[in-house]
Amino acid sequence: MENEVLIFGHKNPDTDSICSSMVHEILDRKNGWKTKAVRLGNINKETQYVLNYLGIEAPELIERVEEGQSVLLVDHNEFKQSVEGIEKAKIVSVTDHHKIANFETSEPLYYLAKPYGCTATILYEQFKNLGVEIEKTEAVLMASAIISDTLLLKSPTTTQYDRKALEELTPIADINIQQYGLEMLKAGTDLDDFSVEELIQIDAKEFEKNGVKFEIAQVNTVSIEDVLKREAQLKEVIQKTIDEKGLSLYVLAITDILNSNSEIIALGEKTGVIKVAFGKELVDDKAFLEGVVSRKKQLLPEIDQNI
Amino acid sequence: MENEVLIFGHKNPDTDSICSSMVHEILDRKNGWKTKAVRLGNINKETQYVLNYLGIEAPELIERVEEGQSVLLVDHNEFKQSVEGIEKAKIVSVTDHHKIANFETSEPLYYLAKPYGCTATILYEQFKNLGVEIEKTEAVLMASAIISDTLLLKSPTTTQYDRKALEELTPIADINIQQYGLEMLKAGTDLDDFSVEELIQIDAKEFEKNGVKFEIAQVNTVSIEDVLKREAQLKEVIQKTIDEKGLSLYVLAITDILNSNSEIIALGEKTGVIKVAFGKELVDDKAFLEGVVSRKKQLLPEIDQNI
Repeated sequence: MENEVLIFGHKNPDTDSICSSMVHEILDRKNGWKTKAVRLGNINKETQYVLNYLGIEAPELIERVEEGQSVLLVDHNEFKQSVEGIEKAKIVSVTDHHKIANFETSEPLYYLAKPYGCTATILYEQFKNLGVEIEKTEAVLMASAIISDTLLLKSPTTTQYDRKALEELTPIADINIQQYGLEMLKAGTDLDDFSVEELIQIDAKEFEKNGVKFEIAQVNTVSIEDVLKREAQLKEVIQKTIDEKGLSLYVLAITDILNSNSEIIALGEKTGVIKVAFGKELVDDKAFLEGVVSRKKQLLPEIDQNI
Repeated sequence: MENEVLIFGHKNPDTDSICSSMVHEILDRKNGWKTKAVRLGNINKETQYVLNYLGIEAPELIERVEEGQSVLLVDHNEFKQSVEGIEKAKIVSVTDHHKIANFETSEPLYYLAKPYGCTATILYEQFKNLGVEIEKTEAVLMASAIISDTLLLKSPTTTQYDRKALEELTPIADINIQQYGLEMLKAGTDLDDFSVEELIQIDAKEFEKNGVKFEIAQVNTVSIEDVLKREAQLKEVIQKTIDEKGLSLYVLAITDILNSNSEIIALGEKTGVIKVAFGKELVDDKAFLEGVVSRKKQLLPEIDQNI
């Protein structure tokens, strides 16, 4: 893998991280530049649905990068969410839609961030700006990422740019967005095979503010009740994670993608933040947050500002 | 000034910071968005040459921003180089060509960085991408910024994109680049009116790495010897700055713009870095660095990696 420029999204990759890495590689190739999409973790069931639909393989898994390795980051910038060794890698570019934190470089770089619902929407605009043709494969990958990150355009993170991109990608992708989208999202909510350890790691992200470390995990479901059948075990594993990583707060959001609400489980010494941030007392370490479906737009900013 | 979106470059503004702020405002206006260029410090003599040439006023000076003020940063991202109050401002966008450090936001934002020689070159590409017409005023402002940051395309920071931008801006600006450029650069080297306190602040930037604070200042000249006539007083003022700001290292680069070399004066407890970074022993707190003219590309990366 030496000398190859690697593209990857965040740890615990979601559909946007995987699809945007692959789309970035396709865009680079069409521009005559050889890069390689890789991934930092297991493919989740939602993303697997997309890959199966297209009949293509997942990017290769990597665990760390060597010093000086050239890398292109998509869908993240915080080193805590990135590959082991990122501090000594050569970050050539970042394409992202998140806030910027715990990120620094020793050299100037390309950094393209827009406050959109999805990284793939930014890549879509890059295709347009560069006048590069969008074909079916990348259209399906980008559409899937947008559907995933915006929960079929229902999340408050959705912008007019995501709507426009999805609309223009639909005929090229040649899919029925509502039908394909719901099936894809539902595929991601099938949690039966997951141990509780695996379940909280499906989409967990670690953050740090002023030396205080916290983690926010999220699982999508069509039945919050169903997930809470394993409440006791979930709390046990969350407490273990807190102890092992030295976290001050762990929030697991169990998000009902059909009704757009979340039940959260919060543990750690800083759980008082939840009351301040959302005006809800934790009962049994849990709170029901009406209308909350977005970690980036709803959970993280409130927790980050109050921790 | 309330409710206005403010655009500014770094403290101790150089020609790129001032011109790019003004160009950003012009681009915004042509896109139907009302913003306002301001500045964080005095106009230097080089920039004054540009403003006089165009017969236009400098942007208004501001000293701080209120909590929640919407701001657009150009030519910098590090909070240490930005306005007082930046931590609580709403950073809507950044357009920059520096490394990223000591920067964070609590919300997603627009961030456009490219590893070019000059911010104005990135803005030039924005005009092209958005299909917005470039007129004489903004052409002169962008050309001046490029000439300043690249020392008439002779600095190692110069990229093919800066060359291309300057080439394409020249006929619109309707100037003789060599003649205008040399006069502009020379105007900036007239240091006679400056006290030593003012001299080291003409273009000083503070950096921080792992809690270690250091500052690198730079003055351009056509005679290093001339500047060194005030060596003793310069060292005195530098030492005072170190004490007041708690710096571990202060480097003043006296750059000969005609021969593309720099003499540096280095003081502070971490001066050992200079030997490691450049292979030169300090003699009398000074070292002659052949071919070194760029803080961003030559001084900062080496010092930053070794401090």
